[in-house]
Amino acid sequence: MRPAELGALFEPRGIAVIGASRHADKLGSAMASSLAGFGGELALVNARPTPGMHTSIADAVAAGDGIDLAVLCVPAAHAAASLRDSAAAGIRAALVCAGGFAEVGEAGQGFADALDEVVAETGIRLLGPNTSGFFVPGTGLCASFVPGARSLTAGQVAVVAASGGMNHVLSFHLAEEGAGVSLGVGIGAGQDVDAVDVLRFLADHEPTRAVIVHIETVADGRALLGAVRALTRRKPVVALVVGEHDVSEFAQSHTGALATSWRTTRAALRQAGAVLVDDEDQAVTAASVLARTRADGTAHLRAGLITAQAGPGLLIADRLAGSGIDLPRLADDTVARIAQYLPPMTFQSNPVDTGRPGPQFPEVLAAVAADPAIDALGVYAITEPVIDLLRAVGDSGIDGTAPIVLGIDGPAVEVAPTMQAARAAGLAVVRGPSRLAQALAALAEDARGRLATDAAPEPSRLPTLAGGWAGAWDEARAKDLVDALGVRTMGRAVCADREEARRAAVALGWPLAVKILDATVLHKTEIGGVVLGVASEDALESALDRVEAAGARVFLLEKMSSSGVDLVVGARLDPVFGATVAVGLGGTAVEIWEDVALRIAPLSPDEAAGMVSDLAARELLRGHRGGPTVDERALGALVSALGDLVAAGAVAEIEINPLRVTESGIVALDAVVIPAVETESP
Amino acid sequence: MRPAELGALFEPRGIAVIGASRHADKLGSAMASSLAGFGGELALVNARPTPGMHTSIADAVAAGDGIDLAVLCVPAAHAAASLRDSAAAGIRAALVCAGGFAEVGEAGQGFADALDEVVAETGIRLLGPNTSGFFVPGTGLCASFVPGARSLTAGQVAVVAASGGMNHVLSFHLAEEGAGVSLGVGIGAGQDVDAVDVLRFLADHEPTRAVIVHIETVADGRALLGAVRALTRRKPVVALVVGEHDVSEFAQSHTGALATSWRTTRAALRQAGAVLVDDEDQAVTAASVLARTRADGTAHLRAGLITAQAGPGLLIADRLAGSGIDLPRLADDTVARIAQYLPPMTFQSNPVDTGRPGPQFPEVLAAVAADPAIDALGVYAITEPVIDLLRAVGDSGIDGTAPIVLGIDGPAVEVAPTMQAARAAGLAVVRGPSRLAQALAALAEDARGRLATDAAPEPSRLPTLAGGWAGAWDEARAKDLVDALGVRTMGRAVCADREEARRAAVALGWPLAVKILDATVLHKTEIGGVVLGVASEDALESALDRVEAAGARVFLLEKMSSSGVDLVVGARLDPVFGATVAVGLGGTAVEIWEDVALRIAPLSPDEAAGMVSDLAARELLRGHRGGPTVDERALGALVSALGDLVAAGAVAEIEINPLRVTESGIVALDAVVIPAVETESP
Repeated sequence: MRPAELGALFEPRGIAVIGASRHADKLGSAMASSLAGFGGELALVNARPTPGMHTSIADAVAAGDGIDLAVLCVPAAHAAASLRDSAAAGIRAALVCAGGFAEVGEAGQGFADALDEVVAETGIRLLGPNTSGFFVPGTGLCASFVPGARSLTAGQVAVVAASGGMNHVLSFHLAEEGAGVSLGVGIGAGQDVDAVDVLRFLADHEPTRAVIVHIETVADGRALLGAVRALTRRKPVVALVVGEHDVSEFAQSHTGALATSWRTTRAALRQAGAVLVDDEDQAVTAASVLARTRADGTAHLRAGLITAQAGPGLLIADRLAGSGIDLPRLADDTVARIAQYLPPMTFQSNPVDTGRPGPQFPEVLAAVAADPAIDALGVYAITEPVIDLLRAVGDSGIDGTAPIVLGIDGPAVEVAPTMQAARAAGLAVVRGPSRLAQALAALAEDARGRLATDAAPEPSRLPTLAGGWAGAWDEARAKDLVDALGVRTMGRAVCADREEARRAAVALGWPLAVKILDATVLHKTEIGGVVLGVASEDALESALDRVEAAGARVFLLEKMSSSGVDLVVGARLDPVFGATVAVGLGGTAVEIWEDVALRIAPLSPDEAAGMVSDLAARELLRGHRGGPTVDERALGALVSALGDLVAAGAVAEIEINPLRVTESGIVALDAVVIPAVETESP
Repeated sequence: MRPAELGALFEPRGIAVIGASRHADKLGSAMASSLAGFGGELALVNARPTPGMHTSIADAVAAGDGIDLAVLCVPAAHAAASLRDSAAAGIRAALVCAGGFAEVGEAGQGFADALDEVVAETGIRLLGPNTSGFFVPGTGLCASFVPGARSLTAGQVAVVAASGGMNHVLSFHLAEEGAGVSLGVGIGAGQDVDAVDVLRFLADHEPTRAVIVHIETVADGRALLGAVRALTRRKPVVALVVGEHDVSEFAQSHTGALATSWRTTRAALRQAGAVLVDDEDQAVTAASVLARTRADGTAHLRAGLITAQAGPGLLIADRLAGSGIDLPRLADDTVARIAQYLPPMTFQSNPVDTGRPGPQFPEVLAAVAADPAIDALGVYAITEPVIDLLRAVGDSGIDGTAPIVLGIDGPAVEVAPTMQAARAAGLAVVRGPSRLAQALAALAEDARGRLATDAAPEPSRLPTLAGGWAGAWDEARAKDLVDALGVRTMGRAVCADREEARRAAVALGWPLAVKILDATVLHKTEIGGVVLGVASEDALESALDRVEAAGARVFLLEKMSSSGVDLVVGARLDPVFGATVAVGLGGTAVEIWEDVALRIAPLSPDEAAGMVSDLAARELLRGHRGGPTVDERALGALVSALGDLVAAGAVAEIEINPLRVTESGIVALDAVVIPAVETESP
């Protein structure tokens, strides 16, 4: 972890352009032109003697005063040598934009390896290769070969994009939105400097008040989780993750990396406190608003909505409901207060539909903002000469007391200056009803994210198991583990032969489940190794026949559970994020509707309990149609414990499927454990 | 149906403003100012003698030359009288903007009724009340009291909005997008002129090339369906429906109308060929693109995507996959052709990632456009001085041969003129990767919509039932109907007593279902009136005991079906849209995941068969994990027939739940029929 060293990359005193060129169609020429606006020293280097250029990196460094950054405009085959020369000359950071490295396969892998070698040997920090660069508009530092990047305006939002192209897209959109850019980086191949490094750097980057991170693939999930978690404590982070659908062939040609699970990546980022968005427009709306205002940490933001036009107001209210944001009822005295200021025809609840705002609009804003049920305010109006929304907000005295987002519409000639004035006044402002709803949703997600704990808790103590952790796990042993975790299982007996099974059946009582017991069989039901609802001696004999036919040498007899709603819960090792836990509905719901909640483990029982709220089917677990209600505390404790088992390396994977929610609590009906690869117990 | 008469409203020769005012804060003043730009005759009327104004409507009409439209700027209490005076003077259309009518409840209902009376007696067409008006920028006709509306530019997209506010929002956004507005209407209360009237008018409105319709509530579902279906044959229709979530209290205060089902409204609009969108930004993107290019009718648009930057390209590809749009593999000779023009590092499949476009970019465009697998083209690039995307498109010669949408990004100073030039060249262009994906998705939805049949088919002949249609329907009778529709049911017997049941059981064979047979019991299972899996004489006796205890006097015995995947299919009368059909997964899927496909009936068996593709769970019905595959043709025939029963008035509602999909076809396991209210058979 060397975040401070990124100062040489993003805040260099001087820059050398290696391979600078006077030929307009060369990369080195575009880069030199882009960097011409840099306020510090700029040295141009070209091996061919050229007026105004040095012929070697060493010369440039010797002649200059504090050249910290080398921008290498050389082909892949020459990149490592130039990088080595830069490091030898005392340069501490470098940018390599060229492609032709690992992403093109074998042909470029050698060039990539050579860069890695120089980084490892010299400690020089390297951004790239395969990126269009980075820019810091506030210092005039534009290390991008896209000419338009020179026009970007300084602002409060940083962009950390997996690809150089998306860094430019997001930055251009931020500029147009009026938010501006504090730092924009395209990670590219990320051979050395990666998104995690930049996120760490941004925690102390004074101009940055909000961060957009664009992710295509993740190399080290834990590092990303830690960096985002540390950053969201101080600054809002908006995350755009690409790869929901299978675009892996194209993605691999682009980055050379294998796809990370989109779903797990999103879950991890959310857990770390980031605001998830679906496209670049949402990213820009969320970040530009969050750079100006954040709500205090709360699980469910309660918004007050004030609209001057009912139609757009209805659209906003509808979309807020879709984002799970409450528009709580206002207190009686708030309603009484605003009734004084509004004509009788208007809707004086929440939303408050004022009709065309009158002179007492500020009083309405102040009344709603003061309501104890309201955490944040959204205000929407179509611009009209008679409506001075900014003055109304100023007169209301609410700015600074409650987070407020303005949504406006109107002809561009009126909207643009109004938005500019609002931003100049430090107000968060967006255009259009849907974006106002998106902005409030981002405020709510960020507020929820601020409750994220600073660091993952230590795994709790593992239960003591008589048989230890090594070796194969059959269902009986897996259920002993579940018992040890304090979760109910049904009475059961392991029976070495049919006679034992007959005796056990009498002892357990009907009805029973009869199952094959064999650690090597993972899908018992599919091979006919499970017979349910065995309710008589005759039925037992035929069940034993069937299970024997499926290959059973040992039988597991188990009492049948009462009915209920079936969940699947489990923990496993994700190749990128390590231990993860999942909670979903049983049956086909998980795979068909993708209705599953994921978290990175270890996590606290409370945090795990909150996973139920992530499920679309949560109502099924809360007494739906007279059905059972899940004990979320008990479920959370179990899921947290499962995560601990995997996080501590005791087992590689454990799945309880089904975990039945009954009137008398949760019951594990089947459990599968995959042992840890190490044979020693933890 | 009097669509032609809307010419007086939207294309008047002259206009009279009733209640015109010189006081800037009055509605009549704002309206007179807005209308000042109108090219035809404008007469101002105020009962109080005022210089330059007439003191009566009759005077204004007599003095003028063809006053067709009266814009009434008078309070609710005086609106009907002014409307009557206008009609008496020969004026054929009127706009009433004021509120204070039905939407405020009893206090305004009388004023609303009075307007209705005048309309009915005189035939004058009335837009409003409770709307901010309408505008036709192409003729300078701005009948809106929102001053900014005067700046709207003429264009090719018409807006038909439920609310005046949303008419303005959408129109301002269209202006900013560069599409402009051909006609913008806020329907408001819609007492006379409603969305259906305007949609019919737009079919022949020459400047309009695409239509956005914004819907909060629907009065006559069939009329809407018909108008949209007729319009989509000629022009693309983009539909934004509000009210996904429960915002009914606020909505009612706003429009005075009860909520229509959001889901059914969307299904009907889609069936009629409209493109559904979720917010105003998507609406504007879709309409501005569709105003310039449409793809031919096809169920699955196949797109070719060409990107100059891989990162945005990946985002576009990911989002297209999410919209169900194929990026098919290019033909081998297409790939060979583009390989000549592109550097070896680029991804030469679909998407084609060109890297920075070179001089042979037009050849690449032409090659992909000529590929037989490609229906439409998306092209994305960040602007650079060296990239002249428009010239490339021009040089490629593909414009006009294949629908093409350009997506660009860059600094505003470069993007704005490029977009303007593209539009001037008649090209569809959007800003940003996500909008390009949205635009292609809109093209695909419109192409699918063009396959919509022109008019609903006639209900097919109903089956002949021995007992006719009148009277109560128990399960046995409902299943006789299912049999008559040609769908398999299980062997069954109606048993008047236990002895009959015992004999029937022997005849049918085990295992059996034993059920209460009682037309008055709708939820048999919940009262304990169903016992499944009865497999022996003993079990039969206890099953009969249980069903008797639940109140059974008559028993229904039925063979058990083999296992499979359960569907729910049904038809019912929607209060707004009439006969509708639904197909969903059985169990809790319909209500929890809202995974149900809806259509308006009657519909052809083919169209009904297509409903399976609407389900998120469709894979479950297509041999998922070795499970059965539904016979979509048989299912479509059944669903179509159910729709016919309700559409023809034979029954009020019929639901088959479950309809089991088995290896040997679909089987109806339970059926409930609600008789038609009329007792005579159809």
